[in-house]
Amino acid sequence: MHRLILVTLSLLSTATLAQPEPKPATVTELLEASKPTDWRVVNPEHVLYMDIPEGRVVIELDPDFAPKTVANVQALAREKYWDGLGIVRVQDNYVVQWADPNAEKPESKRKFKKARDKVPAELDLALDMSVPFQPLPDPDTYAPAVGFSKGFAAARDSAAKKMWLLHCYGAVGVGRDNPPDSGNGAELYAVIGQAPRHLDRNVTVIGRVIQGMEFLSSLPRGHGPLGFYERPEQNIPIHSIRLASDVPKKERIELEVLRTDTPLFAKWIEARRNRSEDWFHYKAGHIDVCNLPIPVRMKARP
Amino acid sequence: MHRLILVTLSLLSTATLAQPEPKPATVTELLEASKPTDWRVVNPEHVLYMDIPEGRVVIELDPDFAPKTVANVQALAREKYWDGLGIVRVQDNYVVQWADPNAEKPESKRKFKKARDKVPAELDLALDMSVPFQPLPDPDTYAPAVGFSKGFAAARDSAAKKMWLLHCYGAVGVGRDNPPDSGNGAELYAVIGQAPRHLDRNVTVIGRVIQGMEFLSSLPRGHGPLGFYERPEQNIPIHSIRLASDVPKKERIELEVLRTDTPLFAKWIEARRNRSEDWFHYKAGHIDVCNLPIPVRMKARP
Repeated sequence: MHRLILVTLSLLSTATLAQPEPKPATVTELLEASKPTDWRVVNPEHVLYMDIPEGRVVIELDPDFAPKTVANVQALAREKYWDGLGIVRVQDNYVVQWADPNAEKPESKRKFKKARDKVPAELDLALDMSVPFQPLPDPDTYAPAVGFSKGFAAARDSAAKKMWLLHCYGAVGVGRDNPPDSGNGAELYAVIGQAPRHLDRNVTVIGRVIQGMEFLSSLPRGHGPLGFYERPEQNIPIHSIRLASDVPKKERIELEVLRTDTPLFAKWIEARRNRSEDWFHYKAGHIDVCNLPIPVRMKARP
Repeated sequence: MHRLILVTLSLLSTATLAQPEPKPATVTELLEASKPTDWRVVNPEHVLYMDIPEGRVVIELDPDFAPKTVANVQALAREKYWDGLGIVRVQDNYVVQWADPNAEKPESKRKFKKARDKVPAELDLALDMSVPFQPLPDPDTYAPAVGFSKGFAAARDSAAKKMWLLHCYGAVGVGRDNPPDSGNGAELYAVIGQAPRHLDRNVTVIGRVIQGMEFLSSLPRGHGPLGFYERPEQNIPIHSIRLASDVPKKERIELEVLRTDTPLFAKWIEARRNRSEDWFHYKAGHIDVCNLPIPVRMKARP
């Protein structure tokens, strides 16, 4: 499309094209040209390591959007609640979910120590203008305004004065029963397919997977109702879930997330909106908020 | 949200709520109440069976949107082109791709018999009003109008007089090099993550996986550039790819796809747009075209 426009222009006025503009930088070129200040080191108190036989899944928590639930999840990790529990549900094109396989059996279910059984639902929060937000100009099917807050896909509704995190690929949310406040963070899921945006504002989203997503997305699918595994031996054992800050420094994975409040990030979005790589024939001109997986890298060594 | 509105109304006028409307049918209830005429039996000439060690992947082809490419893919299946070739690329949150692992080696690559090396690009087609299309009223980030054509997610641009199929989960497209017409259907991919809609109109989409998607989506991810497997022994062998019409009747899987041109389908979309199940606290009010996986079932026996 863009090429056709260029050809048309050249028929009208070749002179104006004598000095063609340099080709816009590609997504890869932009990241290669990034500076250390374009990246944010993740806070180890906001990072979970979920170790399963397949490898380590790293989750970044966002207390700005779910402060009470994140605090409870941190408490659960500190009391080693999940160690030895399992991934019990893998529904294709939807979610991977982990929980206590005996959660429905009062006599054998794992008890909490300091973590709380009841946590208020944080499906959305009162709009807080001090929480960072870079809106995308592109139209969104579901929300009046979508964009990014520190790397997390988020939405704002200025009229309703609300904000919430989005169910994009890798988002981590809180399983619950029918009452909206029936989740406490002990049962969590990660999105492994097309963004199930109809879950937005229906569950508390606490963060997103920033490394090791493939260890969840390639798990065998469950064939019970809703993708639950049908037999206990199919559950994927969780060795442990720990806060990075509770792990010795030398055992941590030091990760950086591309900052979403920089001029570079704005260029990166534009490079994804209108791809300049030679392969692309047609430039989309738009981008979906869930089609912008925010880059993560190992922390650069000084 | 909906509940809050009801509460407000009841404060204004309890009388009008004395006879509450019956709760709308759920997605499940609608399908259970469907009639045989709400389903379309797939045409075995438009169905591919891809047999891999994990199981059978069933792909429905749509010649309305890519007639020349579909014809070449049918020819390739008839000459058993893919038998013994492999899945060579599994990129997380993107695509699974199958091809001749020796495609770059002129001396050892597999030759075509009757299939054509050169096929025109069918990235989009001139808008043909005789091709069925049920538009969604919901706004779309990428295209002026999106909806369904016989179960395939599709778009129309009335101003540009074009139509094309969308890259939703399970869509099957034609791998190509930089020239838009460099794909001939021998190298195909299926979408296994968030809909990569920036590929729309950049590649020829020939159909979608209608059964066995999990056999592709749960494959181990490749760790070479672009998710290609790094060693030939990692490739997933393809036993065979056949047209269903070339398989003895008793070995076929007779599938039906929910028709997308019926009153039931309109109700089904509405039930997904505003979920009436007790679990849902907030009704989204909108639906993304790629968040409507069209139901497929085994053909009902008379």
